Amino acid sequence: MNFRIESDSIGTKEVPKEAYYGVQTLRAAENFKITRLKMHEDFIKSLAQIKKASAITNCEIGLLEKNIERAIVQACNEIICGKLHEEFIIDPIQGGAGTSANMNANEVISNRAIEILGGEKGDYSIVHPNDHVNMGQSTNDVIPTAGKMTILKLIPKALKQLKRLYDALQEKAIEFDDIIKMGRTQMQDAVPIRLGQEFKAYSSVIKRDILRLEKVQEEVRVVNMGGTAVGTGINADEQYLNKIVCNLSNVAEIELRQAEDLIDSTQNLDGFVAVSAAVKTCAVNLSKISNDLRLMSSGPRTGFGEINLPPKQNGSSIMPGKINPVIPEVMSQVAFNIIGNDMTITMAAEAGQLELNAFEPVIFYNLFESIETLGNGVETFVDNCICGITANRERCKNLVENSVGIITAICPHVGYKKAAGVAKTAIKTGESVRELILKQGLLKEAELNDILDTVAMTEPGISGKQMLVK
Amino acid sequence: MNFRIESDSIGTKEVPKEAYYGVQTLRAAENFKITRLKMHEDFIKSLAQIKKASAITNCEIGLLEKNIERAIVQACNEIICGKLHEEFIIDPIQGGAGTSANMNANEVISNRAIEILGGEKGDYSIVHPNDHVNMGQSTNDVIPTAGKMTILKLIPKALKQLKRLYDALQEKAIEFDDIIKMGRTQMQDAVPIRLGQEFKAYSSVIKRDILRLEKVQEEVRVVNMGGTAVGTGINADEQYLNKIVCNLSNVAEIELRQAEDLIDSTQNLDGFVAVSAAVKTCAVNLSKISNDLRLMSSGPRTGFGEINLPPKQNGSSIMPGKINPVIPEVMSQVAFNIIGNDMTITMAAEAGQLELNAFEPVIFYNLFESIETLGNGVETFVDNCICGITANRERCKNLVENSVGIITAICPHVGYKKAAGVAKTAIKTGESVRELILKQGLLKEAELNDILDTVAMTEPGISGKQMLVK
Amino acid sequence: MNFRIESDSIGTKEVPKEAYYGVQTLRAAENFKITRLKMHEDFIKSLAQIKKASAITNCEIGLLEKNIERAIVQACNEIICGKLHEEFIIDPIQGGAGTSANMNANEVISNRAIEILGGEKGDYSIVHPNDHVNMGQSTNDVIPTAGKMTILKLIPKALKQLKRLYDALQEKAIEFDDIIKMGRTQMQDAVPIRLGQEFKAYSSVIKRDILRLEKVQEEVRVVNMGGTAVGTGINADEQYLNKIVCNLSNVAEIELRQAEDLIDSTQNLDGFVAVSAAVKTCAVNLSKISNDLRLMSSGPRTGFGEINLPPKQNGSSIMPGKINPVIPEVMSQVAFNIIGNDMTITMAAEAGQLELNAFEPVIFYNLFESIETLGNGVETFVDNCICGITANRERCKNLVENSVGIITAICPHVGYKKAAGVAKTAIKTGESVRELILKQGLLKEAELNDILDTVAMTEPGISGKQMLVK
Amino acid sequence: MNFRIESDSIGTKEVPKEAYYGVQTLRAAENFKITRLKMHEDFIKSLAQIKKASAITNCEIGLLEKNIERAIVQACNEIICGKLHEEFIIDPIQGGAGTSANMNANEVISNRAIEILGGEKGDYSIVHPNDHVNMGQSTNDVIPTAGKMTILKLIPKALKQLKRLYDALQEKAIEFDDIIKMGRTQMQDAVPIRLGQEFKAYSSVIKRDILRLEKVQEEVRVVNMGGTAVGTGINADEQYLNKIVCNLSNVAEIELRQAEDLIDSTQNLDGFVAVSAAVKTCAVNLSKISNDLRLMSSGPRTGFGEINLPPKQNGSSIMPGKINPVIPEVMSQVAFNIIGNDMTITMAAEAGQLELNAFEPVIFYNLFESIETLGNGVETFVDNCICGITANRERCKNLVENSVGIITAICPHVGYKKAAGVAKTAIKTGESVRELILKQGLLKEAELNDILDTVAMTEPGISGKQMLVK
Repeated sequence: MNFRIESDSIGTKEVPKEAYYGVQTLRAAENFKITRLKMHEDFIKSLAQIKKASAITNCEIGLLEKNIERAIVQACNEIICGKLHEEFIIDPIQGGAGTSANMNANEVISNRAIEILGGEKGDYSIVHPNDHVNMGQSTNDVIPTAGKMTILKLIPKALKQLKRLYDALQEKAIEFDDIIKMGRTQMQDAVPIRLGQEFKAYSSVIKRDILRLEKVQEEVRVVNMGGTAVGTGINADEQYLNKIVCNLSNVAEIELRQAEDLIDSTQNLDGFVAVSAAVKTCAVNLSKISNDLRLMSSGPRTGFGEINLPPKQNGSSIMPGKINPVIPEVMSQVAFNIIGNDMTITMAAEAGQLELNAFEPVIFYNLFESIETLGNGVETFVDNCICGITANRERCKNLVENSVGIITAICPHVGYKKAAGVAKTAIKTGESVRELILKQGLLKEAELNDILDTVAMTEPGISGKQMLVK
Repeated sequence: MNFRIESDSIGTKEVPKEAYYGVQTLRAAENFKITRLKMHEDFIKSLAQIKKASAITNCEIGLLEKNIERAIVQACNEIICGKLHEEFIIDPIQGGAGTSANMNANEVISNRAIEILGGEKGDYSIVHPNDHVNMGQSTNDVIPTAGKMTILKLIPKALKQLKRLYDALQEKAIEFDDIIKMGRTQMQDAVPIRLGQEFKAYSSVIKRDILRLEKVQEEVRVVNMGGTAVGTGINADEQYLNKIVCNLSNVAEIELRQAEDLIDSTQNLDGFVAVSAAVKTCAVNLSKISNDLRLMSSGPRTGFGEINLPPKQNGSSIMPGKINPVIPEVMSQVAFNIIGNDMTITMAAEAGQLELNAFEPVIFYNLFESIETLGNGVETFVDNCICGITANRERCKNLVENSVGIITAICPHVGYKKAAGVAKTAIKTGESVRELILKQGLLKEAELNDILDTVAMTEPGISGKQMLVK
Repeated sequence: MNFRIESDSIGTKEVPKEAYYGVQTLRAAENFKITRLKMHEDFIKSLAQIKKASAITNCEIGLLEKNIERAIVQACNEIICGKLHEEFIIDPIQGGAGTSANMNANEVISNRAIEILGGEKGDYSIVHPNDHVNMGQSTNDVIPTAGKMTILKLIPKALKQLKRLYDALQEKAIEFDDIIKMGRTQMQDAVPIRLGQEFKAYSSVIKRDILRLEKVQEEVRVVNMGGTAVGTGINADEQYLNKIVCNLSNVAEIELRQAEDLIDSTQNLDGFVAVSAAVKTCAVNLSKISNDLRLMSSGPRTGFGEINLPPKQNGSSIMPGKINPVIPEVMSQVAFNIIGNDMTITMAAEAGQLELNAFEPVIFYNLFESIETLGNGVETFVDNCICGITANRERCKNLVENSVGIITAICPHVGYKKAAGVAKTAIKTGESVRELILKQGLLKEAELNDILDTVAMTEPGISGKQMLVK
Repeated sequence: MNFRIESDSIGTKEVPKEAYYGVQTLRAAENFKITRLKMHEDFIKSLAQIKKASAITNCEIGLLEKNIERAIVQACNEIICGKLHEEFIIDPIQGGAGTSANMNANEVISNRAIEILGGEKGDYSIVHPNDHVNMGQSTNDVIPTAGKMTILKLIPKALKQLKRLYDALQEKAIEFDDIIKMGRTQMQDAVPIRLGQEFKAYSSVIKRDILRLEKVQEEVRVVNMGGTAVGTGINADEQYLNKIVCNLSNVAEIELRQAEDLIDSTQNLDGFVAVSAAVKTCAVNLSKISNDLRLMSSGPRTGFGEINLPPKQNGSSIMPGKINPVIPEVMSQVAFNIIGNDMTITMAAEAGQLELNAFEPVIFYNLFESIETLGNGVETFVDNCICGITANRERCKNLVENSVGIITAICPHVGYKKAAGVAKTAIKTGESVRELILKQGLLKEAELNDILDTVAMTEPGISGKQMLVK
């Protein structure tokens, strides 16, 4: 391989001649071989958008020559289109508060701009990574801003899937609205409920999650561009400071606002903690729903057997014909992973010191994964599970009719104590609640028919209330 | 001790004759000896407020006789005033989704009401715990509602302390506004900042926390009273359903709203997860500030020595004269504890099954502690730490003037590369940046004086910009 | 109230005249009003044992006069017997690395010893809290040592309960050994298993937990007494250093060893992390078992209904006759709480800085609770749940016989593919596996009888292997 | 693309003609698009080793024909050598308890074996994925075993790096043994310590971690091969059961033991929790050390400035000459990530139900990453940080000599109270402790010289003890 020689404060170093990245990127790649993965592509694009907006702004205010600006903007546009991503060689988990990621962008853009201007890679006298590409910026405003922009690109994708889930659950709520089944609390027979009501409840909690995720985006719309090193704005021209966020919003087509307190915004990462918390809360709900689906579809013969999940793959390498709830299982695993990620994010946010939190990279690594796997998990959850669920209407009905739980409706008429006695006997002897009440003469058959209306039991009201107030 | 005999579905049991609680409470107390602590007093009062509002409502709609209502209301009022709390003997960590807590309230209120009506404790024919006190209710709407009400009582107390903290930080921001000090990123000398700016930044992040905690209360204002067992409202009269939340709001003087989807609201505890997340996010910020204070006050001789925390107690049993940052230390510990509590709450919320989450008690145990210790921690943080902080103005100034970090302001004038060379030499030889620049003839003394204005460096702008654009 | 005036480095302060604690304790109590709870009684006793052992040692080597030693030892003995605990007034969550707890002990012991020697409380010229009671010690060796001793007192109590649980599970394993039931994987019917085998498996995992908890005690047997302030042993006489741990072991009747590297042992709290991890791992297993019991006892009519948990209390305030799995529920909640505590402990241990970790108090607060609630939870789990479990033999048998899962045993004889076809048809049509195989002529009836022996299926081996190798 | 048609219980499906994987793999790949990553290569190799050992065993006991065994073994050997890994296309986070991963291996091996035997891919009559490759196995014994084998391959790599770290720290301990510096507790000046002692302490804690990780491997040496579906060993011939683990140990050259209770071993994942806990405990210690290094190297001018970390890359895009502690920063981030992973693993382990825990895939995804990033992080920590640390001897010495902390050594001679007075004055006035003591006539100069020997202060003993006992 051919090399060019580059130098930085550490010394000189051979860089592959064809590489767009430079010496600082190379050192970082050697220092951080942790996950062996690459940085997120939306994060790389966000960096390019920031560099583009900065070049435009610096040119507007007369600090950057037009031809350099043009070259930088072109280089950025290429990255935004998905090119040159293989030049971003640094591990997502990196030390240095993202300086390596920022310099990787600065170097790649600089060398591509040099090339555009007819120079040779490495001839930074033409376009300098720090003096030109990074002009008016610092890692400490660029990196958190790029992280926030990435989140603002990822959340809508997850929201799209959550909205599809909401719709799918609503459809099932309607489809299953007339299926009476046993409600269970603490895994014990409680009182009748309609299967549609259950799916409606799932849609209600997902609706809340959608609202939370929509709102929590506000937490990361506020960026600290212009704050430079510690938020005081050193080396950022005042005109630049006033224009950069607006220009960046335009370039990226994302609504962004400048922080009122740039120093606060540079050192505190609570916004990411808040985003992760909203994602986590959604994960909690998704796992609960998944667990419910596993319970209701348990069987086929020895479980609840109330619903059937669509068969998506053979369930066993040894047990023929076994079909497992693989999609709810992967949904729960996504949730567990997100909950663990939230812990990492929390610890990293807490560990900030003075004017900066150096631990953004691990926050991004985890938070991007959380949002993305949430969306991916929900997508398969909708398409390969929810939409194909069918109900075992007869089974559901039979379970209700043989249950003891319907005794609850009797309670207002005979009192808790007598009703409890009936229930106890029913469970012990296997007799039906209806038979026992008639046998004990607690109510007349007509009254009982009126009270033991299982459909009525699934709506508010005291069954047979007219008897009480007569 | 004298006993009375009570019975329930399990059998008969001796209850201390003087006890207001009954057989169900006693069984639960025996079943759950976990923390050996008592339930939170605001939770007990909330239960009494629910029972009071229910009695009023049931009477209004003609289901409960006036004299029974009066007795129940009087009994509830006594509990709300702080009486009879010693009759609530059940461990806060309890099985049964809070049925034990609910029955403890039902039994105590019932027996006190019986007494008021001239009966003898245990004669439930007069006022029955289930049929009268629990009328129209279920553990499954009472307990989550009581938990939410407790949170709505505790958060304002924490908010009051956070607002005091905000004010105290703002005052320090003004007091320290003219103290120049070294900004540090990643524990390395960065660029100058004013001590007042740092405290301003702390106030800004606390302001966000205040807003988050104010907003998150909406998550728990929505209650499921009227949903009874599984949210379908079985055995809750429709009139009751329509009136209970309004009556409860009035009784408790807390703004509450009825859930649109009572089934969802009965089984999903994501609102508690969201509240805990907001408390946790605040804890993260408080711990970060605490850590900063420990760093800046490190010394007195061999650390940063920039600020002094007020001495609050001897710091050592062996090292005379040692004063430690004990208040920031306790603040961080409160934060660690809250973060752990958040994990417990998350797991418990995820574990809900079908129509109910049975794990509310451990959520309440942790969440009440989180909110309360947050407030308690902040109170001592304000009174015994923040308010008494003093600055070592000379020390701060000297550190800045001897630092290499001021080189950053030179950068726009000589370029990153030359500036880096100066910095490297300065660090190696111990010479000052100013001397080196003059020696190397990079800038003239007048220019340098203009650029190296440390106060100007703490505000946005390029020092000596006029030289660049001339 | 009458007061005496005491002074420390902070200034003078009124202390209640009758109080055994002194000015430093009082300041700490005012600084830390966090949980409003008291320190653990075993921790207080451990402090007294350390003070006693130190006095004995210092006297042996000629640094402490005999009469002072006698008074200190007597004061310590009183605390060890449970007296004077109300004088320990400091919050368990406290700043200062436990200096407050240590000084609380030093002051109480000092004042009691002064009293014993005929002096007046507060006359520290007779027995001084620092110079005499704390002689040769520092908070930084006393507090971690007292924490470790407390753990070594608490773990055996938890182990005792775990061993009872192991025995109870073993008994159930024998009792239920001949009950065939359906095994389920991923909530789907799998292959037959015996109920006794399941309880045997529970006992096996608990046995591992017992071993882990027994072993992990080694992590906290190693103490840093003699290391004083930072582990270098400053102000600890070499003879004292050599004797103190042996004396302390004798006084406390606990096996303790002195750390080889006292500096390491003073600043690193990984031993507590390891203990918490073992407790947490046990909690994970207990919650899993609890969840299984809830599944198997689900019903009574619409769930699995394979086993019955002993009814321990009414399950509902609205649903008569409902019995809930309250004990497994509390067990799971204990587990969730322990898992959250583990997170707090982990964060606090990570936050240590240089020669000390100041966050021991919150570690102890959480770890003591974890160990103790584990034991308490298991105690009720054994007594109020496991021992009283009964099996529904017929129900279990019927479920197996009607299941499709027995097809697995057919597989080696007809191949996976054909077996899968049979299973699919069986599930769709409701026919039995046996009927279908005969109908399709895949095997003869005699062969089938041989293969479909459900008891044989619960032990290793290929049913009807002789047919395969013929 | 050309396709072949394959079928399973779900139906028929086009599989790329050249693919070695089959229909079940393809369905799984479509069902689980979560992380978009691939399964770990060591996990794939472990699967192949299991399949190889099973084929050998089944052939030995006469259940598998020799020519099929040979073909399977050859196919497995190719995978073990790193070939065909691109055929493993399933997401590491997958539902189905790993059935997809197991079937992916079964199908790839089967098709490769078919090819070896001269057949065409997809002609499973020659070698069947279930009947031949999976003979005697179930996902439920194969997958946990493969996970354990992977861990047993990864831990030694991490241990190798930890041992290098231990050695590097020991070397630094020797190199820095004569450098006196100030010890700090709670970020406040405490008493002198030697820099070498600090590095020695770091090596001591790492030594404990090495021991923990070595020991914890025992947790995963115990495998459930032979237990098949639920641990009862259905369809596993008894001879197979007795031989498989021994054969597998030989094939993989890893010491493995068969679980005594195969049912327990199939359903409980506490061993993975224990492994993760040991990794986490190590991470806690590494992060603490990293934080210490950041503190001690803080500066260069306005921090502690006691040590220098080797400069590895430019520290800032805006601040020239800034060098940051990037390696300790990445080490801490690795730790935070591991701690979050531990939480995910804990939750997933807790979520097991009845005869199986379906959540192994997310446990493996996190645990493999934890172990591997631990090793990777430590490798760069040793090579790019620890080995190159240098000390600022003079700075360290000056800080000690100007400190107040040396007053501690005076304490045994003048008592805590007088010493505290001196310290307080010294801090207030800036005078030295030595001057003040002489001025106040507390000790004579000769005595003071004897006592204030800073080197002696770093070893156990009372400085100037002869004066005390004279």
